[in-house]
Amino acid sequence: MAHTTSDTAPEALTTAIPDRPTPYRGRVNEMTDARTGWMSREDLEQARERLPLVYVDAVPVRVDERGVVVSVGLLLRAMPDGSISRAPVSGRVMYGERIRDALMRHLEKDLGPMALPRVPTTPQPFTVVEYFPDPEVSGFHDPRQHAVSLAYVVPVSGDCVPSTDALDLQWMTPEEATSDAVALEMTGGQDRLLRLAMAHVGVLP
Amino acid sequence: MAHTTSDTAPEALTTAIPDRPTPYRGRVNEMTDARTGWMSREDLEQARERLPLVYVDAVPVRVDERGVVVSVGLLLRAMPDGSISRAPVSGRVMYGERIRDALMRHLEKDLGPMALPRVPTTPQPFTVVEYFPDPEVSGFHDPRQHAVSLAYVVPVSGDCVPSTDALDLQWMTPEEATSDAVALEMTGGQDRLLRLAMAHVGVLP
Amino acid sequence: MAHTTSDTAPEALTTAIPDRPTPYRGRVNEMTDARTGWMSREDLEQARERLPLVYVDAVPVRVDERGVVVSVGLLLRAMPDGSISRAPVSGRVMYGERIRDALMRHLEKDLGPMALPRVPTTPQPFTVVEYFPDPEVSGFHDPRQHAVSLAYVVPVSGDCVPSTDALDLQWMTPEEATSDAVALEMTGGQDRLLRLAMAHVGVLP
Amino acid sequence: MAHTTSDTAPEALTTAIPDRPTPYRGRVNEMTDARTGWMSREDLEQARERLPLVYVDAVPVRVDERGVVVSVGLLLRAMPDGSISRAPVSGRVMYGERIRDALMRHLEKDLGPMALPRVPTTPQPFTVVEYFPDPEVSGFHDPRQHAVSLAYVVPVSGDCVPSTDALDLQWMTPEEATSDAVALEMTGGQDRLLRLAMAHVGVLP
Repeated sequence: MAHTTSDTAPEALTTAIPDRPTPYRGRVNEMTDARTGWMSREDLEQARERLPLVYVDAVPVRVDERGVVVSVGLLLRAMPDGSISRAPVSGRVMYGERIRDALMRHLEKDLGPMALPRVPTTPQPFTVVEYFPDPEVSGFHDPRQHAVSLAYVVPVSGDCVPSTDALDLQWMTPEEATSDAVALEMTGGQDRLLRLAMAHVGVLP
Repeated sequence: MAHTTSDTAPEALTTAIPDRPTPYRGRVNEMTDARTGWMSREDLEQARERLPLVYVDAVPVRVDERGVVVSVGLLLRAMPDGSISRAPVSGRVMYGERIRDALMRHLEKDLGPMALPRVPTTPQPFTVVEYFPDPEVSGFHDPRQHAVSLAYVVPVSGDCVPSTDALDLQWMTPEEATSDAVALEMTGGQDRLLRLAMAHVGVLP
Repeated sequence: MAHTTSDTAPEALTTAIPDRPTPYRGRVNEMTDARTGWMSREDLEQARERLPLVYVDAVPVRVDERGVVVSVGLLLRAMPDGSISRAPVSGRVMYGERIRDALMRHLEKDLGPMALPRVPTTPQPFTVVEYFPDPEVSGFHDPRQHAVSLAYVVPVSGDCVPSTDALDLQWMTPEEATSDAVALEMTGGQDRLLRLAMAHVGVLP
Repeated sequence: MAHTTSDTAPEALTTAIPDRPTPYRGRVNEMTDARTGWMSREDLEQARERLPLVYVDAVPVRVDERGVVVSVGLLLRAMPDGSISRAPVSGRVMYGERIRDALMRHLEKDLGPMALPRVPTTPQPFTVVEYFPDPEVSGFHDPRQHAVSLAYVVPVSGDCVPSTDALDLQWMTPEEATSDAVALEMTGGQDRLLRLAMAHVGVLP
């Protein structure tokens, strides 16, 4: 059953040394389409007042050859409360969608199809962020909804192009990204999320 | 600001050495009641076909004085698919509810008000379990819904009385709980969840 | 084999609701004594220049009934470099000693026999701290040795009395403990270790 | 200070898309050479009877484009107790050496210079393995020494060639690698280590 080999699993190699990297095609569970499609805007608004939504947060990083985080990517974008904030990649998990597929979909949407993200092997997030309409509950704020977000640090090795939704993408050292000056450019608890991420990878100053 | 002390924080002591342990009162965010209350059965059914729900799984354990898991508590109960299965404590996170409060609420509901659970200090779950209506997607099966469940191992030090929902509560050694015989008494991937929990705490045989 | 029970595992109860808490007796592996005993001061000095030593760091905390960290215990003590610093519990793992036993031994040594520490169920540390004689290598400094330290957050629910080695024990809120003012009272990277611990449990401001 | 960029950090790209991958050169702390060099065989033997040694275990895996582990690499080699066992990459951390450098050094030694390992961003191991001369203490056995080993799952994307120390390198699916048949080919607790690793990445059957 087990196959002896000293060579390379083809799918892994393709990912790492692509000639022509192809955009990631989200694997939507067939049941999803058959049963419901995805929610209408109106239905989503209603559900948002009644159920916590499942989200993912992905902090994109560059690593050196030993896995040390050397820079952090922060998008600049309009937040739900109307403010402009630096923020990591973030988004909702759809009905029928695996966590990993949601991560890949949002990373591609925000960083472009050539970013080559390496989603961690473990499903264990480094933290769980609880966003509430009331900013006092947890310090993480989303005026639209209660969202429970699984947070991951994701190395990217390819070429990142911020999406049209984002105004900018900046790469900073961990020191810069967790500085007071940059914290002032973040709202809704995004600065704290970034500090937790940098602590997890051992580079919080 | 910091206060010098060699004595004991009162709230911690009260929890650990209670004279008359009082049932845990879930802290419901005030906004919850004001805005929506909790969902009607009908609305919940509708949402279940359109959005992933947020769940928690809590594996109750007994530990020795060094923190080593010596036994695991498994409820016996009716599962969503109609089968009877051994299973850990599990349940939905409500709108406006913190993860920790949902854990406490479900632990009290299933193990009684005297169980004295010690929810971990870190919000980081040991794994994330993705339940799908299609049992093939992840191996974790819930015919009613797509649920994303944050899984924790929770030591309990008090007296556990299974709730009326559960038919029984058994304490087993990690070896027994992960044996083939007991796995046959679990459905929907609960046996696998248990193995992941025992692996995390280092006692998977 | 599995035993049905709704009552309480005796050893767990004894730990949680002790009449007369007894000091923890380190379980020294018999082989240790038979073969070598523990190292002479001179031999240890020699080894320190040639091998990384195994250490544990334990950040003692008070938690509320939901597991939220509400205060952090910091010892005040003389550091290896001669400075006085606030610091968590820390110490060497002996030959033949389990990690958990080393944690219990150092917690009892530094906080007294009535502290009732609850060592986490998982052997997974929240981080690994690498101390080097050269302060530039990792930012964690120990002039005596290269030490690799497994770091844990440990709730204590009993009465803490700082040992004779420590000059003081202070309990602070996470905000105070991670403030700039308190950071100035820590040397060798202990302030950073504390920030990583508070980030792991989700209460880093 | 922060630099706006949509392009690629050079050092990360080089790692991921190498023209001519160069062997990893361990970064030995200068202090190491100046002060002691590395230990003589005789001194190491003495220390092994008196101090726990610091080790790393690295389970090499192939992942798909979403980070799911699809195969596991197991070396076949002579174990300290004279048995032949399948085993992951493993080895000692030297005086003055960073954990990451030890991981890179042993991965290159056992899998060759073209394996392109991606050491995780976090220093947090998925478990800590305690090897003892007495096989009864923890179930992890090393007749030579007491070793405390930090265990990581490490995706490799390049071409793996087992070193001369290893008799073979096999890639297996997680199901095969954790099967009873393959467990019979592992000694000293290596089969259990593998199950813990597969549980951590969510693919333990």
